[in-house]
Amino acid sequence: MGEAFIAEEIVKEISLKDISKKLEEFAQARDWEKYHSPRNLLLAMVGEVGELSEIFQWKGEVAKGLPNWGDSDKEHLGEELSDVLLYLIRLSDICGIDLADAALKKMVKNAVKYPANRL
Amino acid sequence: MGEAFIAEEIVKEISLKDISKKLEEFAQARDWEKYHSPRNLLLAMVGEVGELSEIFQWKGEVAKGLPNWGDSDKEHLGEELSDVLLYLIRLSDICGIDLADAALKKMVKNAVKYPANRL
Amino acid sequence: MGEAFIAEEIVKEISLKDISKKLEEFAQARDWEKYHSPRNLLLAMVGEVGELSEIFQWKGEVAKGLPNWGDSDKEHLGEELSDVLLYLIRLSDICGIDLADAALKKMVKNAVKYPANRL
Amino acid sequence: MGEAFIAEEIVKEISLKDISKKLEEFAQARDWEKYHSPRNLLLAMVGEVGELSEIFQWKGEVAKGLPNWGDSDKEHLGEELSDVLLYLIRLSDICGIDLADAALKKMVKNAVKYPANRL
Repeated sequence: MGEAFIAEEIVKEISLKDISKKLEEFAQARDWEKYHSPRNLLLAMVGEVGELSEIFQWKGEVAKGLPNWGDSDKEHLGEELSDVLLYLIRLSDICGIDLADAALKKMVKNAVKYPANRL
Repeated sequence: MGEAFIAEEIVKEISLKDISKKLEEFAQARDWEKYHSPRNLLLAMVGEVGELSEIFQWKGEVAKGLPNWGDSDKEHLGEELSDVLLYLIRLSDICGIDLADAALKKMVKNAVKYPANRL
Repeated sequence: MGEAFIAEEIVKEISLKDISKKLEEFAQARDWEKYHSPRNLLLAMVGEVGELSEIFQWKGEVAKGLPNWGDSDKEHLGEELSDVLLYLIRLSDICGIDLADAALKKMVKNAVKYPANRL
Repeated sequence: MGEAFIAEEIVKEISLKDISKKLEEFAQARDWEKYHSPRNLLLAMVGEVGELSEIFQWKGEVAKGLPNWGDSDKEHLGEELSDVLLYLIRLSDICGIDLADAALKKMVKNAVKYPANRL
């Protein structure tokens, strides 16, 4: 039991809602909900955006697919991208925003705003 | 045809991979792939984090669930949260990082690093 | 009277403390001090960092001195850099931190941490 | 000789231009100018904004003057505020923007945009 279920989940495609639920359980099990106010989570996310930026800061332009990066650099990058994602999902949840729904609506809105160049 | 499929998707829970594919198709259809380098996308995401922060900047502490916010404020918040998410997912994809996989691994790592307070 | 003194100041080199005083007077004259809490100012600064990043987001690598930028783009850039500076100075002041003093100490610390490569 | 002059400067009020010159000398003495491109410096600044945000992230609302903060927390804060400032000044210089001049113009513009509430 406990949190073993997290690993099992890797086999199927995970939804934003799945992650949101796991983060809520994670916070509850640690009595961390009292710290999870909207502005605390937002600043925590800004902190992670800073760590993500540090990875790219002295590199000049970086090619798609990161062809010359070592495995540990890519793993580190994956962790920082994840940290931003996890705080973003948690912030949305604490604000009562359905992020998956909002993101789909925003994609539709973007598609209308920027029509594709089709013949 | 075109991008009508986006709206249909709303009925089921969407995965990070689903969004990633849609963003790729969106960029291809507009010939925007040439702009989607890692650092361009990262800076675009920082721009959206700024817009998200502006929503919270003069509000002092904000309660969970945003009890006194109007519908249009919540909708605006949903859009800014989404903009951060969309650039984050696109950045991950362009870097060749499987964000869903990375996020699950990070949650497992966090669960090990911060054990739950259970009796 | 009023704030005409601001323009006169341009002739001499302005100190961080000069700017800090002007910002305090500016907030007092508008009864904005009640909004200037540390975290409000921090989030406002993050908002401006976002606007600054937007200027650079789709440009790929940018050469020193911005050789191909028009005057209005440079002016816009100067305004966004200034917005970050003004909130940073105000945030420091509201926190009771002497930013000029702290910056000089940090430069000394950096000089010790990273010794120059001299023959 | 070397960088002893930095400490002497503390006695007088330092200008943004003074700091800019010191940062240029600092980079030259370490052969770091090659790393100081606009977007590298911008991302480095975003990294420091992240570290600054981390100081405030779990604190809830923070009172002006930081009444309950210890000396080492205030010193740490001063260092992070300084890191943002130093990269901001360096970024401005590398972009060929006179930050002091731009900041004064922005304050004049703000004073016009937001007239003071005077009787």
